[in-house]
Amino acid sequence: MPVNLSSPRAADLWAVPGVRLGITEAGVRKANRKDLTVILLDEGSAVAGVFTRNRFCAAPVQVCREHLSQGEGIRALVINTGNANAGTGAQGLADARATCDAMAGLLSLKPTQILPFSTGVIMEPLPVDRIVAGLPAALAHAQADHWAQAAEGIMTTDTLPKAYSVQVPIAGVPVSITGISKGAGMIRPNMATMLGFLATDANIAPKLLQALTTELADGSFNRITIDGDTSTNDSFIVVATRKAAHPPITSLSSTEGQALKAALMQVARQLAHAIVRDGEGATKFITLQIEGGQTAQECRQVAYAIAHSPLVKTAFFASDPNLGRILAAVGYAGIDDLDQTRIDLYLDDVLVAVQGGRNPNYQEADGQRVMKQSEILVRVLLGRGTASDTVWTCDLSHDYVSINADYRS
Amino acid sequence: MPVNLSSPRAADLWAVPGVRLGITEAGVRKANRKDLTVILLDEGSAVAGVFTRNRFCAAPVQVCREHLSQGEGIRALVINTGNANAGTGAQGLADARATCDAMAGLLSLKPTQILPFSTGVIMEPLPVDRIVAGLPAALAHAQADHWAQAAEGIMTTDTLPKAYSVQVPIAGVPVSITGISKGAGMIRPNMATMLGFLATDANIAPKLLQALTTELADGSFNRITIDGDTSTNDSFIVVATRKAAHPPITSLSSTEGQALKAALMQVARQLAHAIVRDGEGATKFITLQIEGGQTAQECRQVAYAIAHSPLVKTAFFASDPNLGRILAAVGYAGIDDLDQTRIDLYLDDVLVAVQGGRNPNYQEADGQRVMKQSEILVRVLLGRGTASDTVWTCDLSHDYVSINADYRS
Repeated sequence: MPVNLSSPRAADLWAVPGVRLGITEAGVRKANRKDLTVILLDEGSAVAGVFTRNRFCAAPVQVCREHLSQGEGIRALVINTGNANAGTGAQGLADARATCDAMAGLLSLKPTQILPFSTGVIMEPLPVDRIVAGLPAALAHAQADHWAQAAEGIMTTDTLPKAYSVQVPIAGVPVSITGISKGAGMIRPNMATMLGFLATDANIAPKLLQALTTELADGSFNRITIDGDTSTNDSFIVVATRKAAHPPITSLSSTEGQALKAALMQVARQLAHAIVRDGEGATKFITLQIEGGQTAQECRQVAYAIAHSPLVKTAFFASDPNLGRILAAVGYAGIDDLDQTRIDLYLDDVLVAVQGGRNPNYQEADGQRVMKQSEILVRVLLGRGTASDTVWTCDLSHDYVSINADYRS
Repeated sequence: MPVNLSSPRAADLWAVPGVRLGITEAGVRKANRKDLTVILLDEGSAVAGVFTRNRFCAAPVQVCREHLSQGEGIRALVINTGNANAGTGAQGLADARATCDAMAGLLSLKPTQILPFSTGVIMEPLPVDRIVAGLPAALAHAQADHWAQAAEGIMTTDTLPKAYSVQVPIAGVPVSITGISKGAGMIRPNMATMLGFLATDANIAPKLLQALTTELADGSFNRITIDGDTSTNDSFIVVATRKAAHPPITSLSSTEGQALKAALMQVARQLAHAIVRDGEGATKFITLQIEGGQTAQECRQVAYAIAHSPLVKTAFFASDPNLGRILAAVGYAGIDDLDQTRIDLYLDDVLVAVQGGRNPNYQEADGQRVMKQSEILVRVLLGRGTASDTVWTCDLSHDYVSINADYRS
């Protein structure tokens, strides 16, 4: 059961001028599944991406990096589920390239104008023939208002499709921002989402897009974690079709640049949160806010130590205010000169620990009340400085084990 | 169900001349539980310890470090279960000291000759009055042949007591080595055991004991992990009563020093493995052997990335040879210049992946056969050098979640 998340309604998702999406059943792994999605971009679109830092990155990630660096103008994305084309060696690379070749042939483009994405089981050969055979049907299905269907088309163990959309005025001109994401396990920063696609018709200078994309990822997908596993395939792509009729944005610090960035961040963060809310087996959405650090980096370290502790995560699942487990995680986060006698811990508004010990006024009933909520804020005050950072995560339940023990069955 | 582990038989555990052990029910947390253990050491014993690196270390750990550094000659250990006396601030320190004061009073020793240990729930006040009240009964019960009872006395979520014992000749004189350990969750290197006590009557120069203890910990308790959580209380203590009639060992590189070290390591490793075999919810005992690294350190990094991946651990639980998850963990272990095309992966004798891709001759049935075993060897060949290292871990099952969601109930 996802935590406070519902299926996006197609009517709530703005079409983005210059973007069309088509979905079909290619039979990649199982029959009767929408498992192949294409996203077509008009000429003149700017595209940037951030990818997994896993050294065992999948073949499509390697091909995406290559094609983006060649700068021929990306015109289409091909996304299959059911198979990640990772741990597949030289054959996997050849298969990812074959997908691009076939798509380029159908659209009279160069293969380097296509980006391939795969998600699903690792280390099984990609059934590239079935993907190639499915491309014409996906193309025939492509329409501007298929965002909700595309959100479904890229799902794997997700229980709900994930999409979010806003429209904002830029210099008085309405600009659309719509995105979809997928991922429910093997989620950890750098990157967190297994796949995320964000598109806008804003007219932004192409040279600004890569820095903006990195910043968006750092404020959203790179701040979530479910199980600490960094996927081989994580990809976050931002597209700007530049069709909106406002004057071009040439600086991110201009009024228009800031407005666009804020709106894009809102969408990216909603998509990232949706992944946590639909985290495998998740029953709670937890915000870890670490304050009073010397650096934001050490705050993140503490946040991730808490977020990745199976003991903390199972205590949240049980609604058990066994909060010493949080202090223990703070202690092993790797800050060598941490002084435990300066640490305070809040659960929402409840002050649980003061100066490293139990708050004398703390009542277990108060902790219990917060632990039963579906949304919980954990605040740790390190008492070392003024830096802070935030990470979002979920609990660890029986269903996480069931889902991952049965995933391939 | 522990993995290939059974209760130690009292008759298999050698008494160690100069060591007596007493156990009683002090009612620390629940009634009718053996929750207080004392270990009494004859005068002249040498004692060394290795403790948690968690910055949120418990009060007794702080007191142990103090008392060991004062060098007054440790004569007694006091161990309570049911309460970890961690996250208890200044009161916790006072409580740990009060325990030592009371024990010293009963034995006409100095408080600095006592080492306190606590294990159990974090961040609840230690019921020090009940512990102090229980000390006379524990002392009255003390005998040299109570190792098996002591192994039971220090259990928390352990399902079985853990003890191991050998007798070896040193310069022709039989020397006894007996140890006990406890711990089943919140287990991670530095330190891995929550509590481990090893005693020998070998006559070893006291100045050698600290280095030897560190080496023993590094080869045993610091090479196991269950859930990646480093406890606030982990303590590993080695006692040498020096009563054996062989000439004193004054160098660890002498024939006698090496023989003693090997025998101590055997016992320490058995005690560490027992903790993994009894890991919370464990159904499989997994050896991760990483070879071909540039340094042992990077081999350990890879081993821990695999050992801590919930996705890998649930796949082992399911006996599902979803082995791409192992490659993914290798990829995010943090070796920046890792070349995935040089990596081979074996499951026992089955070559699963070659040069980063699936071995063309690999049959899933072969992987499946190994995954169904209760003891599994995972070998990763990094192809970067000649260093190697080994870590032991277990799988992640439904029972892990149940145990930790219900622990305090």
